[in-house]
Amino acid sequence: MSGNGSGDWARLARRAHFSCGHRYYQPALSEEANREIFGSCYSEHGHGHNYILEAYLEGPIDPLTGMVINLMDVDAILKVVTGELDHRHLNFDVPAFKDEVPTTENVAKFCFRRIQEELEKGASPAKLTSVRLYENEDLWVDYGKL
Amino acid sequence: MSGNGSGDWARLARRAHFSCGHRYYQPALSEEANREIFGSCYSEHGHGHNYILEAYLEGPIDPLTGMVINLMDVDAILKVVTGELDHRHLNFDVPAFKDEVPTTENVAKFCFRRIQEELEKGASPAKLTSVRLYENEDLWVDYGKL
Amino acid sequence: MSGNGSGDWARLARRAHFSCGHRYYQPALSEEANREIFGSCYSEHGHGHNYILEAYLEGPIDPLTGMVINLMDVDAILKVVTGELDHRHLNFDVPAFKDEVPTTENVAKFCFRRIQEELEKGASPAKLTSVRLYENEDLWVDYGKL
Amino acid sequence: MSGNGSGDWARLARRAHFSCGHRYYQPALSEEANREIFGSCYSEHGHGHNYILEAYLEGPIDPLTGMVINLMDVDAILKVVTGELDHRHLNFDVPAFKDEVPTTENVAKFCFRRIQEELEKGASPAKLTSVRLYENEDLWVDYGKL
Amino acid sequence: MSGNGSGDWARLARRAHFSCGHRYYQPALSEEANREIFGSCYSEHGHGHNYILEAYLEGPIDPLTGMVINLMDVDAILKVVTGELDHRHLNFDVPAFKDEVPTTENVAKFCFRRIQEELEKGASPAKLTSVRLYENEDLWVDYGKL
Amino acid sequence: MSGNGSGDWARLARRAHFSCGHRYYQPALSEEANREIFGSCYSEHGHGHNYILEAYLEGPIDPLTGMVINLMDVDAILKVVTGELDHRHLNFDVPAFKDEVPTTENVAKFCFRRIQEELEKGASPAKLTSVRLYENEDLWVDYGKL
Repeated sequence: MSGNGSGDWARLARRAHFSCGHRYYQPALSEEANREIFGSCYSEHGHGHNYILEAYLEGPIDPLTGMVINLMDVDAILKVVTGELDHRHLNFDVPAFKDEVPTTENVAKFCFRRIQEELEKGASPAKLTSVRLYENEDLWVDYGKL
Repeated sequence: MSGNGSGDWARLARRAHFSCGHRYYQPALSEEANREIFGSCYSEHGHGHNYILEAYLEGPIDPLTGMVINLMDVDAILKVVTGELDHRHLNFDVPAFKDEVPTTENVAKFCFRRIQEELEKGASPAKLTSVRLYENEDLWVDYGKL
Repeated sequence: MSGNGSGDWARLARRAHFSCGHRYYQPALSEEANREIFGSCYSEHGHGHNYILEAYLEGPIDPLTGMVINLMDVDAILKVVTGELDHRHLNFDVPAFKDEVPTTENVAKFCFRRIQEELEKGASPAKLTSVRLYENEDLWVDYGKL
Repeated sequence: MSGNGSGDWARLARRAHFSCGHRYYQPALSEEANREIFGSCYSEHGHGHNYILEAYLEGPIDPLTGMVINLMDVDAILKVVTGELDHRHLNFDVPAFKDEVPTTENVAKFCFRRIQEELEKGASPAKLTSVRLYENEDLWVDYGKL
Repeated sequence: MSGNGSGDWARLARRAHFSCGHRYYQPALSEEANREIFGSCYSEHGHGHNYILEAYLEGPIDPLTGMVINLMDVDAILKVVTGELDHRHLNFDVPAFKDEVPTTENVAKFCFRRIQEELEKGASPAKLTSVRLYENEDLWVDYGKL
Repeated sequence: MSGNGSGDWARLARRAHFSCGHRYYQPALSEEANREIFGSCYSEHGHGHNYILEAYLEGPIDPLTGMVINLMDVDAILKVVTGELDHRHLNFDVPAFKDEVPTTENVAKFCFRRIQEELEKGASPAKLTSVRLYENEDLWVDYGKL
């Protein structure tokens, strides 16, 4: 319990949706190794997914507003971050994935860092503790405090 | 791992559903501040949601019954607690929200405290570690051990 | 099969979400009859739900665009219609429910009629055949062509 | 009721999942028209989705097996058809979408026709009446008997 | 549109849940044929599922109550019917499946007939048009008006 | 944060599905005690469920592949483990449940141990931290690191 002994502490989670194309390809590896490691995710033009992003934000419940953080502020941040990914082909259109394979792990890491950067521009005492990124309903990654 | 080295320990989660009306309004603030902070949630007669409540209960697995806690006992407790909220208008009908804005954070806190009170009346060694309360599929709050 | 012998015909469905407060109360009936017929839905200040609205639109697939109707047009219409309901208390804030009990049946009928009115202002050959309105995941109503 | 007066008739539905990249682009239109009609779906390298395909098969219930059609046969057909789409970029890798924009409508039509072709190779009396194709949980298309 | 030209007509759907054990076995067939037709569903002690039953009820919207049928009446009927199946092993505990293989098709037929029988005992003008029975989220059967 | 200060660390989750029959029965207890403790889960031939198993695997993100663990390896392990349970009656067909009541708690423990055994045969640095096992959408158990 993080502070719930003394005051009131809670974690708010918010979902956002975006769709991307991607391809698993590591130029430092041979074609054969790429094929073996990445299987059907290694194809020239890529494929794509409907991603679901969950941001977890922790902090004291403001006794006046009853909120950990104003949802309108969370939504504004998520709109910025998912706007950099939505309806794009990660390998071609998003600079962060020039150097890294756009796996669920790396896309989750990207989202965590970008949300954290945007959150720090504001004045909220809430902290981003982790993100969860679903590539589909049967596969997801948690990044941050595990 | 909480005790899984020595014995068998697990966490059981149970869902319950309820529907409420609510309105975000803080009398200590001006009408203008209420409108700015609470946006569309600030309207005279309120609106409402289908809430989903998840209770997380942790304890040793009884070697005889194979259970952390008997599900019939959990359901009896959740029936009492959701019965105080279901098909009610939180601001008008539930005393706890006379003093507090019925945000997801505060409704989660209410549920945590009430489940804990009811659980302590029984003899189960299981502890309520946290609750998760969904206001909708894209917004929820965890309260308790985070 | 509606025209699929000769040309290409399809039905597109689009979901939209909104949250409302409501109360089941029929002034033409006694208090006792209201209580007996409407049960827990009959309480003075009401409760509320997260509604999900599905609009079903049928028509030929345009051979150039591959579309029955442009999704941007559907979304614009649904935004207008759900905007008349979202974050409101149906009994107090929506004139259509001054005269009618805001049951799932009547809210579905309202949505069907309003979408149809908005659709007819445009030039799309697609027709609204029905709507489906979910009050929760276990209860919904279809209105239109059944 | 299709024959349920005399015998026993039912419709079986089966779901399958696949993920694709795609791009909305019609070479017969100007760049400006493409941008206006297809919006964010018109980008050079495309994006992608997790599709869900539902096949609806109708026929008499065999009194011996209790089945409209053997599920193993349905799954074999769906594996063939989704195998032609899964983890591919529709515009580049699937010949049917060289000539047609890979909208949900056109992908649904492709699935209907291919399932029907495969089904006709077998001996089952069940008929494919329609398919439903979800591009995401808020958008889908029915093709076939509507 | 069923009467929506003249009056108001709608279809209400209600979900109910139950869990059963079952085994696919046809004594009129050889062991080998049972194994070939029923695959993993043919094992001596059976396996089981969480079923979801949807009942579709159609009729005029009562102008006074705003209802096709009172939900309390629907729930009472569904409680009776699912009570004959829930937490039972269909092959051993439910007489209807002494003679018939408990496939999704046959369990759907059972539910349709039993709901219809119970509905006819009441005075509601609403008719059961069909049921949908899910064996899991990827397999279901519609029985009745298709 | 587990190592995210220095390097890159993440948790990958993968879902698998299986269906079983089971019965709650403890021979060390009287018939009366069995009935009282296990309620409707205590019936001679048992009932069954669609289980969903989630495996949580934690480790460093490989900078070359962008992966915590190769999904093909996870799927191979889950296929082995769920293959020992799927379409079986736990009490009769799975030796582990000769001695233990097949509650959600005990089936989760079985899955955790078996996945861990299989994982240790491979060379991945990723660790299984916990499993989550759903008996249905309203009841589940976490076993491992809580």
